Amino acid sequence: MKYNYLSNLPLDEAKKEYYSALIASGYKASTEVACVNGACGRVIKSAAYAHICSPHYNASAMDGIAVRAEDTYSASEQSPVTLTPDKYAVVDTGDPLPEGFDCVIMVEDLIDAGNGNYNIIASCHPWQNIRQVGEDICMGDMIAPAFTVLTPSLCGALLAGGITETEVIKKPVVGIIPTGDEIVSPTSDPESGEIIEFNSTVFRGMLSEMGAEAVVYPITPDKKDLIRAAVEKAVAECDLVLISAGSSAGRDDYTSDVISSLGRVYVHGIAVKPGKPAVLGEVDSKPVIGVPGYPVSAIVIIDEIVSDLISQWYRRDNFHRDTVKAVLSKKTVSSLKYTEYVRVSLGRINGVLSASPLNRGAGVITSFTKADGILVIDQNCEGIEAGSEVEVRLLKPMNEIENTLIITGSHDPLIDEVINVLKKNGAPFRVSSTHVGSMGAVYAVSSGLAHMGGIHLLDTDTGEYNRSYVEKYFPGGEAVTVKGVGRVQGLMVKKGNPLGIREFKDIKNARYVNRQRGAGTRILCDYLLDKNGIGPEEIEGYENEEFTHTAVAALIAAGNADVGLGIYSAAKIYNLDFIPVCNEKYEFLIDKKHLADPMVKAFLEVLYSDEFKTRLDEMGGYSTEE
Amino acid sequence: MKYNYLSNLPLDEAKKEYYSALIASGYKASTEVACVNGACGRVIKSAAYAHICSPHYNASAMDGIAVRAEDTYSASEQSPVTLTPDKYAVVDTGDPLPEGFDCVIMVEDLIDAGNGNYNIIASCHPWQNIRQVGEDICMGDMIAPAFTVLTPSLCGALLAGGITETEVIKKPVVGIIPTGDEIVSPTSDPESGEIIEFNSTVFRGMLSEMGAEAVVYPITPDKKDLIRAAVEKAVAECDLVLISAGSSAGRDDYTSDVISSLGRVYVHGIAVKPGKPAVLGEVDSKPVIGVPGYPVSAIVIIDEIVSDLISQWYRRDNFHRDTVKAVLSKKTVSSLKYTEYVRVSLGRINGVLSASPLNRGAGVITSFTKADGILVIDQNCEGIEAGSEVEVRLLKPMNEIENTLIITGSHDPLIDEVINVLKKNGAPFRVSSTHVGSMGAVYAVSSGLAHMGGIHLLDTDTGEYNRSYVEKYFPGGEAVTVKGVGRVQGLMVKKGNPLGIREFKDIKNARYVNRQRGAGTRILCDYLLDKNGIGPEEIEGYENEEFTHTAVAALIAAGNADVGLGIYSAAKIYNLDFIPVCNEKYEFLIDKKHLADPMVKAFLEVLYSDEFKTRLDEMGGYSTEE
Repeated sequence: MKYNYLSNLPLDEAKKEYYSALIASGYKASTEVACVNGACGRVIKSAAYAHICSPHYNASAMDGIAVRAEDTYSASEQSPVTLTPDKYAVVDTGDPLPEGFDCVIMVEDLIDAGNGNYNIIASCHPWQNIRQVGEDICMGDMIAPAFTVLTPSLCGALLAGGITETEVIKKPVVGIIPTGDEIVSPTSDPESGEIIEFNSTVFRGMLSEMGAEAVVYPITPDKKDLIRAAVEKAVAECDLVLISAGSSAGRDDYTSDVISSLGRVYVHGIAVKPGKPAVLGEVDSKPVIGVPGYPVSAIVIIDEIVSDLISQWYRRDNFHRDTVKAVLSKKTVSSLKYTEYVRVSLGRINGVLSASPLNRGAGVITSFTKADGILVIDQNCEGIEAGSEVEVRLLKPMNEIENTLIITGSHDPLIDEVINVLKKNGAPFRVSSTHVGSMGAVYAVSSGLAHMGGIHLLDTDTGEYNRSYVEKYFPGGEAVTVKGVGRVQGLMVKKGNPLGIREFKDIKNARYVNRQRGAGTRILCDYLLDKNGIGPEEIEGYENEEFTHTAVAALIAAGNADVGLGIYSAAKIYNLDFIPVCNEKYEFLIDKKHLADPMVKAFLEVLYSDEFKTRLDEMGGYSTEE
Repeated sequence: MKYNYLSNLPLDEAKKEYYSALIASGYKASTEVACVNGACGRVIKSAAYAHICSPHYNASAMDGIAVRAEDTYSASEQSPVTLTPDKYAVVDTGDPLPEGFDCVIMVEDLIDAGNGNYNIIASCHPWQNIRQVGEDICMGDMIAPAFTVLTPSLCGALLAGGITETEVIKKPVVGIIPTGDEIVSPTSDPESGEIIEFNSTVFRGMLSEMGAEAVVYPITPDKKDLIRAAVEKAVAECDLVLISAGSSAGRDDYTSDVISSLGRVYVHGIAVKPGKPAVLGEVDSKPVIGVPGYPVSAIVIIDEIVSDLISQWYRRDNFHRDTVKAVLSKKTVSSLKYTEYVRVSLGRINGVLSASPLNRGAGVITSFTKADGILVIDQNCEGIEAGSEVEVRLLKPMNEIENTLIITGSHDPLIDEVINVLKKNGAPFRVSSTHVGSMGAVYAVSSGLAHMGGIHLLDTDTGEYNRSYVEKYFPGGEAVTVKGVGRVQGLMVKKGNPLGIREFKDIKNARYVNRQRGAGTRILCDYLLDKNGIGPEEIEGYENEEFTHTAVAALIAAGNADVGLGIYSAAKIYNLDFIPVCNEKYEFLIDKKHLADPMVKAFLEVLYSDEFKTRLDEMGGYSTEE
């Protein structure tokens, strides 16, 4: 089996080498002429100088009458001046100042004196209520320098300055070639071994946000000649080409070879995680980039390399993204081998903006959908301690982040359901919900990292739920529990219960899938093991930890395990049999300081609503008597 | 002349009344089905639940071989385990885990032992290097709640979860009807009295940024029946209608009457400045809004009212725009009659973020193009003192604002030219340039409001430029001047010099246009008046103050004045005759702390470049010997 090791060039070096090679090869933007009235968002090629003044004539700024200022000088409340029709001309806003007049009196200030005469009780000075020529823009003034983005108001200013057409930078066209034998177009019913091709959709969206236009080519199988033909076509038709997947150095990875054969590869392998197996090449003075197949790796390469290239095309400064300082919620280690991109969620509690690292897997696209920002850990940094101040690149507007209800704790789908109702009702805040188990909720609330969290903590001495834990960890009453739901925990097994599992101790004879330490369900598992006199080492799969009820159910349905503890609603989704084990109280632990927070109140309001009880009944396995 | 007074409803009341009336009338969003792979930026109607797991099968996470973990348990560096071909199956990344195996060893860790055998020196645990079913997404999990914006990664997650189509909120279609007898389509050669219609372009751009689609209807003259017909058509075709101009209560203002005749007007006149003469109405359950004709008034109404309606359509929270705290650079008074929208520029110097109010005229679109943010002054506030902390709504990303070279001082077009070269070279910062005259530069630099500023300050005692001022205002050497250019000041008069002006004292016989107090050119004017024994009161137009050389030239060209002092390049643009009066030194005053600032250095580098000297020669009237 062949394996070529990749280089591990530091990110900055890789960029520097690549960009200077590209510029030397002649890579640059082309331009086109655009009508200004459709050019919002475009970037102008050259400085825009006003062709005409705005206003380009002396215009009345009001509805009223044009007069000569000198005819009004003696007017006062005590001795009004009467203006006869020969002393004025009626004007509307925008009308040119009639010859011989030099100011305008607005209609509100006129006193009708009959026979077409008006009395006025205040004098005017010359040019009063006149928009003089050039008040806004003077002919010859530079309205905007080269390479300026046309905002809506700037388009208005250009038109006001008599510029109707302008040369703009052409939108770069980026060709995307998805590759791979196992790749299939999006479907809701893929076969085993078929991977749904969604990277091109992610790229297209990202490129559109950067001001580029994407052309997605058909999926090309892992055949060198087919990939080569696809790249040739794309290079001829586009300004930049991305080859999705096949960028590493494995058996079926042809990207690097293909680019080499058509042009040149400058970098293969960058010291960035995720994103290492990237290929930076050039064909016919156009960048051709091999993007790794794992979606998060791909996003990092697009975000770092492609985004830079698009910015250079428009000669705008990258990185445009704003950053914010936040406090890291937990220790985050990192390898000295890579610059690392850690997705984080952000939220403010008690005045402190916290950054919490999300799943770091390269294949976990949902770590990006949940991310509010990116923490870049430098290659020469081994990690960052909890509580350190870090700089985070923002993926969402701060306004949204500042208004976030943070729920950290035990997983239950009902939280998502409450969030859904809040969104439907147009709640003026968002909810960030993380699954870290019941003990995670205790930690997060006590550390000021969450407003609230779901808990179902069995006191194995008393058989009671939650109360003793709250008393222990919040002896001063700093946090309280509010009623949630009753729910049934049970053993989930394949439909028809092939192993004939009837009670908890039967898991000894099956492959078990466990929950993570600190989860309420894990505590229940350990309690039941203890009660049944079974040691963890007797359970096959005890060390296989999952974070949610549905993850446990999914593995049982897939046959990776035979049995696991979880709630009824999860078993129902996966059409599993469910053997009830106990009823538990799933409650919300809330920091007392936040009980009156409108976000917390709105959450609880939905939770206790009749509409929501109906939804819980649909999901099944919940009781709401309490 | 009829004049109906408008109401002056506080903004919040106007909104509340209008929005509740609209909702009562049945105003709400419609939906459509969209393919997820083209749905980036769209808003989903309902919660998205995963149809399938991702991965939906157990997939190899690496290129390598699938094995049984138990076959590897005894492997160590001391005693490698040999795996014969019956003990493994070759897999590539993404391949399904073959039946009977439970982990993958990556190719890099295999030692070829010949005959198809591999040695391994480390044990594996079950599920190692396997992406288990549901690792990223579990079937039945809510991927996103209702009314979520589809980001690129979220589109990817939906596709990964087997969702290929989804119901999204339809983009609201906003009809724009420009009205007015004097309005013409954009042109570079309008007649006197013709106003270039650019508001629809500004609206279209703003609406696009809000997620709405604009349809611009033909310009409709100020005829009630024509406007009525246009509104009927637009209401039938669009979700929301904007009637541009004619929204006040003057002779030719029909918007309110037309909406009343077709539906209902809820508000006519809002206590907001600019923006007061707005009409908030409804026809057939669709919002129909009369937008004031002045561009800045219009922008405020779109930004406040229309933006709210679009946000409600998408059930997103408005105001989405981030805010920032800044220190107000100068006292800003405001009327108790209105909530006021003050455009401000923002910049950070010496760690302090300052907000400087821009031109407050409702007709000055360039005040918006220059604005970095909006300071909203509450109706019950009479004004804000200089040095107060204020909250500013951001119009630009903070990253851009933080990297701003601030030049405040005397006007010379050469500053814009330097900025243009910097932009062409892709400088990683922007420049904010404000014209407040030479004394304004002294004030701004000494107050820490600018990095630098242009000055040409004549010491009327010595005839020398700049030095004595700098010594006086910066006795500790806190600021220095760096060489700029020599330039010629002179009298600008109409081509052919109809009044036969030959030297400065001849302005006594003409209508003069002056520069503002503090401008170097004003100081020169006052010096020359004094030297010639002329009193200001003897000069007609002495009190007419303009802020730039081109503004003075424009007024002379338009015939509003006969003569003014200014620089040669301005006279040249307007084809005016130019009578040289004196040579002066135009230099840059720079805060010493910022001399080494890369932005300042980059600016000076361009200024002193040969390329730039060529440009100055083209403009004319400059000398660069020094």
